[in-house]
Parts: sequence; structure tokens; C-alpha cells
Amino acid sequence: MITGKNYLGNQLSAKGSITYKTFNPQLNIENESVFIEANSEEINQAVTIATSAFKSFRNISGKRKAEFLNAIADEILALDDKLITTYCSETGLPEGRARGERGRTIGQLRSFANLVEEGSWVEATIDTSQPKRKPQPKPDIRKMNIPLGPVVVFGASNFPLAYSTAGGDTAAALAAGCPVIIKSHPMHAGTGELVASAIVKAAEKTGMPNGVFSNLNSSGIEVGQQLVSHPEVKAVGFTGSIHGGRALLDLAAKRDEPIPVFAEMGSINPVVILPNALQNRNESIAKTYASSITLGTGQFCTNPGLILGIKSKSLADFIQNLSDEIVKIEPSCMLHPNIIGAYETNKQHALAQTNLSVTADYGRNVQTNYAKQAITTVEGKTFLENSTLHQEVFGPFSLVVQCENENQLEQIISQLEGQLTGTVISDGNEVADYPKIISALQNRVGRIIFNGVPTGVEVCPSMVHGGPYPSSTDSRFTAVGIHSIKRWVRPFSYQQWPNTLLPDELKNENPLDISRLVNGEQTSAQI
Amino acid sequence: MITGKNYLGNQLSAKGSITYKTFNPQLNIENESVFIEANSEEINQAVTIATSAFKSFRNISGKRKAEFLNAIADEILALDDKLITTYCSETGLPEGRARGERGRTIGQLRSFANLVEEGSWVEATIDTSQPKRKPQPKPDIRKMNIPLGPVVVFGASNFPLAYSTAGGDTAAALAAGCPVIIKSHPMHAGTGELVASAIVKAAEKTGMPNGVFSNLNSSGIEVGQQLVSHPEVKAVGFTGSIHGGRALLDLAAKRDEPIPVFAEMGSINPVVILPNALQNRNESIAKTYASSITLGTGQFCTNPGLILGIKSKSLADFIQNLSDEIVKIEPSCMLHPNIIGAYETNKQHALAQTNLSVTADYGRNVQTNYAKQAITTVEGKTFLENSTLHQEVFGPFSLVVQCENENQLEQIISQLEGQLTGTVISDGNEVADYPKIISALQNRVGRIIFNGVPTGVEVCPSMVHGGPYPSSTDSRFTAVGIHSIKRWVRPFSYQQWPNTLLPDELKNENPLDISRLVNGEQTSAQI
Repeated sequence: MITGKNYLGNQLSAKGSITYKTFNPQLNIENESVFIEANSEEINQAVTIATSAFKSFRNISGKRKAEFLNAIADEILALDDKLITTYCSETGLPEGRARGERGRTIGQLRSFANLVEEGSWVEATIDTSQPKRKPQPKPDIRKMNIPLGPVVVFGASNFPLAYSTAGGDTAAALAAGCPVIIKSHPMHAGTGELVASAIVKAAEKTGMPNGVFSNLNSSGIEVGQQLVSHPEVKAVGFTGSIHGGRALLDLAAKRDEPIPVFAEMGSINPVVILPNALQNRNESIAKTYASSITLGTGQFCTNPGLILGIKSKSLADFIQNLSDEIVKIEPSCMLHPNIIGAYETNKQHALAQTNLSVTADYGRNVQTNYAKQAITTVEGKTFLENSTLHQEVFGPFSLVVQCENENQLEQIISQLEGQLTGTVISDGNEVADYPKIISALQNRVGRIIFNGVPTGVEVCPSMVHGGPYPSSTDSRFTAVGIHSIKRWVRPFSYQQWPNTLLPDELKNENPLDISRLVNGEQTSAQI
Repeated sequence: MITGKNYLGNQLSAKGSITYKTFNPQLNIENESVFIEANSEEINQAVTIATSAFKSFRNISGKRKAEFLNAIADEILALDDKLITTYCSETGLPEGRARGERGRTIGQLRSFANLVEEGSWVEATIDTSQPKRKPQPKPDIRKMNIPLGPVVVFGASNFPLAYSTAGGDTAAALAAGCPVIIKSHPMHAGTGELVASAIVKAAEKTGMPNGVFSNLNSSGIEVGQQLVSHPEVKAVGFTGSIHGGRALLDLAAKRDEPIPVFAEMGSINPVVILPNALQNRNESIAKTYASSITLGTGQFCTNPGLILGIKSKSLADFIQNLSDEIVKIEPSCMLHPNIIGAYETNKQHALAQTNLSVTADYGRNVQTNYAKQAITTVEGKTFLENSTLHQEVFGPFSLVVQCENENQLEQIISQLEGQLTGTVISDGNEVADYPKIISALQNRVGRIIFNGVPTGVEVCPSMVHGGPYPSSTDSRFTAVGIHSIKRWVRPFSYQQWPNTLLPDELKNENPLDISRLVNGEQTSAQI
């Protein structure tokens, strides 16, 4: 049952006066449930109970946190078809995608459960004392990662499950020992409430302190602003637009105590197609990219919005092939009228730029809220001179840049803003002949892909989802994979602390049997 | 020979018109050398050559970076007495301190050399492909840490060697593969230039690209501001005042591309003395702390500026003992007339607060630039109500707070700003009876010390030098120890990248024989 209320810990609350509904873009109608935006009192209450919960939550064992995370996964699965149908009605996305994303969300929760149950993630580092060292004795010092405090997570419009209420940010923060307050995304508030109910149930079943999780409804920007400004909030996770992410970053930077904001924002994900690949695999590359550009109606932060090649007959053929292929694909629904509105506006703005040619623009009529894909092309010089062309058009849109030569290609890559991904399409070892291109690309992105597509972010320890600004606000961290837990922790040292009072991770006996760096050697031995 | 010029890579340059001299506080006279502040053109030049150097420096092997770092250590030692006498003449510090700090600086350089020569620090993480996985095949993904780009390091007033030109920030950034531009501290510009000459010589001897290191003189704030604002600068390291660090943080946050600022700032380093310890070891604790408070004329960021106890006869006795002990200690010289000026101003401001008692104020005449130590005391209630009393008085000064009871002690700790350290003085296992106090303290500091003093920062992997704001701007990193290298790197993923083109750290053959996380298992095996 969707109540439309906020979860303040395990209490439902609806004291606010602003209400809103979600929208079914496939049917082009509002959904029934009415959501009540959290008011100022409720926001403060959520932070107060999170701060209180932190006092105990930050000290509970990895084993118990694992139980909590696994219970969340179980409770989400128990929501069953109710969750899937709500998800579809609030996004216009197909059921297969809903089930796939749920699987990914469950997988993320369980992978963090495994991580904290095993326990070595705290990076325990121990240097034992040398009482006889000259001129001064060396003290015993022991370090491990501890949680930062209450974290605010903003739900993402394009991933109602995997990057929202119980998504990667939440799973990582809870695993770290940080209570989480969700600023629910208004476009899928029902999905969010259902998932929140699962988390609250899991917290109660596994005996977590009340306040370890809250879910706040919000239709505008005020709830998020108040949360990020609250002195007891210690970090922020966000996935969304550059505009939104930067506003939160600026707000956090202006606090008396600035706090880290990990925002994963826009990206046009440059794809470099090398000459021999263009020559020898032109049609298959075009087919692959027509599919990647339109996947999920282009609503992925890894969508390939920029394709770079060196001017040639093959590149011209490729543009034609890509254009032919992309108009064959049936248009699909976008998440919300606002999203399709922004897509059409941004697309038209791009199309209106001087010296830009439109090579494919789906011309037939489409259903309301369905996006028409487009392919455009410019010369390298035009691209270099017009920074509007560097901006993301969120949706099934891509720009092919025809560079004069290798130097111009390198120059263009070097002048790009930071990106999540860069891709190189190469005919065999052709890539080895372009070290400068690869080096320039590496300096602008967080992940580089060989002969593939940037869409499809594998959830595994080796994944980097993040990159130089503005693809993310702090390239030193990834938003995906177990190492994303590092965003929510800080190292902490105990000096000459009595062994019996140390946390288990640092005790001589190594009761958790974790791997530790002891006097410079990685070992799970006792001391 | 001290030229007073800037090092732009390996070129000496003096195009600016602003000049200044350093000062000998022991003799109370200016030193002879004239330093020429870098002008705007020189600042840009330093960044341009750093950016160019980064293109090759970021790809050189750990073995070669180790040669470079070891060569810097060798060249610093080769400066011999010239460096020591210059250091002493610019700081008023004794020769023993100069030699000790040089040893620490050399040790830091060599420990980073060892770290990058061994190579596992890049945290190589590999997930091999599963081509037959359903529904989608799993790609091969491999991750490692790569350098951010050119880094600006601000020399610290109180550590002309260990936290300045070739100090911890520089050693860590060079080890990471980031070129370094030093904003030299004006108070020890000669020491800085000598060390810079050693780095430049080492870079040439080991074949590093020109621009990998530059040293810019500056007497005011403009050079630093221009450096932090430069688009090609990618990170900042700073050790100094809260005022200065916050200004740089704000400047970096306002850039089109915000960059990380790692500033290690002020701290009053609370010390909690538990009742039984006060009862049983009153005099010895007083003696130890009189010495810690005056060590280095109190010019350490870990100086114990705040002592907390529960009101009792023992605490009153302790205040008396501490006061008696501290006036027995001979006053010593501060670094610079500006520093002693600030100490006297801040001390008088603290002394003027309502309901504060001065229990020790060194009354006799002292030499010019020598600091008079002081001990003061207030009731817990007064401390809670007056945030002026929470502010650092940089120098040989400490405030003893007499708390009503355990609850008030906990409340005071919880309301403190973030601190580098917290110390607990306990009679045996007494500490076990105060879990709330310890928990509150842990939440406010980066390092917690049992029965010791906060001064003396051991350089080892388990050290955390940093803490919640404002002790540092990002508590997620330490400024001391090998793990401080993490401030200057970002993770980077290669997806389906050809084995022969991968960096050695990620190749199947594991040619560097480093420990890697391969398919979830930490191993140095080949793939």
C-alpha cells in the first residue's frame, strides 16, 4: 500500500502541505497516489534521529550490518509484482528493465553485505610499538576506516531502484555505518516509498536503531537544500544533472563545516573510431552504436553522445550508416513529460547551431512522451569553436565530429570537459599507433573501453563510475562497485590504546580473521 | 648559494618587482638574501611546464619515480650544513630540531620511494571476462590509481622541511605521478630555495621531464590565489591557519572545475584526564603536559590547547601543579615577529574573556620574539557558552576546563569543532568506565591517544594526521604516512583493453609482481 507519507525512521508522517502525484508517461496520465512533501519539522526530525542512530550504528559489527543489508534485499524481493508494476507506471520503462534493475539492486546490497561481513574493507593498518627505539620510543598505532555520520542520498530520475532509495549510494553508506536520509525523487515517489518500507522493515527485523533510515518526499528543491545545509549531515550522494549537482556542491561548500558531495552528473562519453575500424567494420559499428544511443531511450549517463573520427570517405559512410540504422529503431517512451520536454529543447538548441548538419531525425509521428532519435555531424573546427556542442543532450542523440587529422582529434579530446567514459573502436592492434590519442582520452575520463559501447555499467570491484569534473564532483571515488564505500568513511588512528578496548578489527588476536597491514606486511596473522 | 629567484622547472627566473627578506627571530634582524616574488607570467609558465611534464611523468614507472625521490633525499643531504644554518637563521629553531626535521623529511621521501618501487599502492583490481554469462557477457575490467595532474603545495610556516618544499605533500604527489608547484613560505624562503635546488638537481640527474617541479616565491596571498585558480592545476595541499585554508578551499570551490584542497589547519587537541588518573598521577601528568604545551614554543598543530577534567580537589591541584611546572620552563623563541605578535594578541583576547582565570602567566622579562607561556582555567558552563574559548591560541598556551560532571564533559566534547587529536589520560583500565566520553571524542578527532601526549606525529602507515573540519578540509584522507598518496590519485578503469597495451600493473603476467585483487581474491599470481 502506498500511503504518500514520509518515513521518519519507522514512523509514517505527513505534516506538510505541499502535495504531488507521479505520472505514467506511457498512458500520459497522473498516477493515483498523492504524496505529501516533508516539511521543515520533518526534515529536522529525520536528521535528529539519524544523528542519534549513528551513535550506536557506527559501532555495530560487520556481521550485523550484513544481516541488515541482506534483509533489505529480501524485503525488496518480497514486494514482488507490486514493486514492478509501480516502477513501470512511474517510468514508462518496460517490465524487463524493472526486473533487471531490481536484480542489480539486490546484487549491490548483497555484495556490500559480503564486503562488511568479511571485514577487511576497513583497511586495518597496524604499527606495533618499539619501546627501545632511539631517540624516541615508537608508540603502537592502529588505523581503520570509520563512518562519517548521517548521509543524504538523492534519488536519481533514471534509475528508480539501482541509484535511488536502496541503490548503490544507500547500500554503500549503510555498509560503512552511516545512517541514510533519502531525498526521494518526485517522479517515482511510489517506487521509493515501497522500497523505503522494505528498508524500514529490514531495520526493525534485524534490530537496527530507529533513524538509521528515513525517506523524505519532495517535489521541488527545498527539501534537498535544507538537508544539505543541516549541520548534522556529514556527506551527500547525488546522481543527476550538472546543474543540480553543482548547486548542491556549492551549498555544501558554503556551510560552516563544508562536507563532501559525491555527485555523479552529466557526460557525453566520447567514442573514438580509428581509421581502419571505420574502413573494415563500418556497418557493424553503425548498427552497434545505433542500438547503444537509443538504449533505454538514451536515458543513461553513459550514453554515447559524441563520436569522433578523422575525416574520410569511410567516416562519411559511417555517418550515413549510423543515420540509416537509427531511424529503423522504434522510438520509445521517456521517463516523464519534463524529461522529454528537456530533450526536445536541448536537441533543437543543438540542431540550431551554425555549421551543424542533421543526418538523421526521426520524422514520423510518435506517441506522446516518445522521443525521436537524432544524429548530427560537424567539422572538428566547428566543434572546437562552439562549446554548446560539448553539452549533453540527455536522450537518444549523438553528434559525430569529423576531425581534420590526428592532431585535431587529440586537441578536441584534450579540450573536452571531464567524462565518465571514453571508448576506442579499433581494428585489431591499430590502437597501438595512437598513443597520444589514448593518453589524452585517459586524462579526461574515468573508464576507457576497447571495442565496445559505454552503456552497461558492470557492477564489480574493478569498475570506475565517476571521472574528472563535471562527470563527477570528486574523481577520487567511484559511485559503483564495492570500493564506493570509501566515499563515506574516514581513516581513524588509535595510539597506545588498550588491546581489550580496541575494535575487533584492530585487536592483537584478529578475531575477525581479516587481512591487515601489520608493520608493513599484509597478513591475517595474530599479533 | 641563495639567489632569491624562482625555479620554473630547471630555470631560475626573477621577473617580478616585489621583493622581501626573511627574518632571524633569535637575532631580531632581517637575513641578507633578497627574494623576488613570482609574477603572473612566471606563475603561468610554471603551470604550463607542469602540465606538459605531466604528459610523460604520469606514465613513468614506479622504479624511476623511486630513483627520483631517493635522489631528492640524497641532494638534500648534500646541502649539508648550509641547509641547517639557513633553516636556523630563518626560524629561530635550534640546530637539533633542524637536523631532526631533515631526518624526517628524508625518511618520508624514502618511504614513498619504497612504496612506488614496490608498486601495490595502485590498488590494482581485476575482474576477468565471462563471455558466456547470461543474459549479457561480462567484460574484462581492470582498475588502478592514476595521478590527478599538477598539484600546488603551500609551504608551512612551522615545518620548513617536513611540511614544505620537499615535505610530505610534495613527496606524496611526486610519488603519485603529479608534478608539483610550490608556493614557497615567505618566512623560510631561503630554506625553500635550497631544497628546491636539490629537487631540480635530482630531477635532472634522474631524467625527469622539465616542469615536474617548480618553486615560486611569494610574500603575500596573490601567488597562491592565482595558482589555485589556474584551470590546469588539479589539486592543492596546504598546512596552516583555518583562515588561510578556508580561503583556498572557497577559491577552489568557486572554479569552473572545482578541485580538491587538502588543507590541514588548526586544532586545540583536547586532552581528557580521568578522575583516578588525576588522583594518582597528578604531578607527573602536570610535568608531562607542561613540557608538551611548550614543546617547539607550542608551534605544533598537535599542541594540547584544551585540557578537560571533572571538577574535584584533584583537578584543582592539577591546575596548580601544571601552572607551577610551566613557569619553570625557560621561554623560547617563536618563528617570526608576526607569529609572536599573533600569539600575544590571541592570548590577550582569551585572557580577557569573562569568568576565565589565569593560573600561570610567565611574568619575567624575556628576549624579543620569545613567547611567555600561559595556563588558564574556566568552568564547563563558561566554556559551553563562549565559543571564543574554543579557538586555537597558536603557541605555548592551554586552557583547563573544569566540568560539572561526566554529562557536561560529554556535552563539551560533542560540541567541539573537529580536531586532529584527542587524548585520554587514564589510571589503568579506568577508561573502560567512560564509553560515552570515548565515543564522543572519537567522533570529533582523527587520532585518539591513550596515556600520552598529542605532540609528536609518528610517520608510519597507521598514522592519521587529519580529522573532521576544521582540523582538515577532508577527513577522508591523512596528510602523514604513505596512505597520504591517495589524496593525489583517482581510480581508473580499462574495459576489454588489449593486454599488451595495459600498464604493467594490470597485465596478465603481473611483471611487477604486485599484490592485486583478482576476481575478488588478493593475490600476486599471474592471470
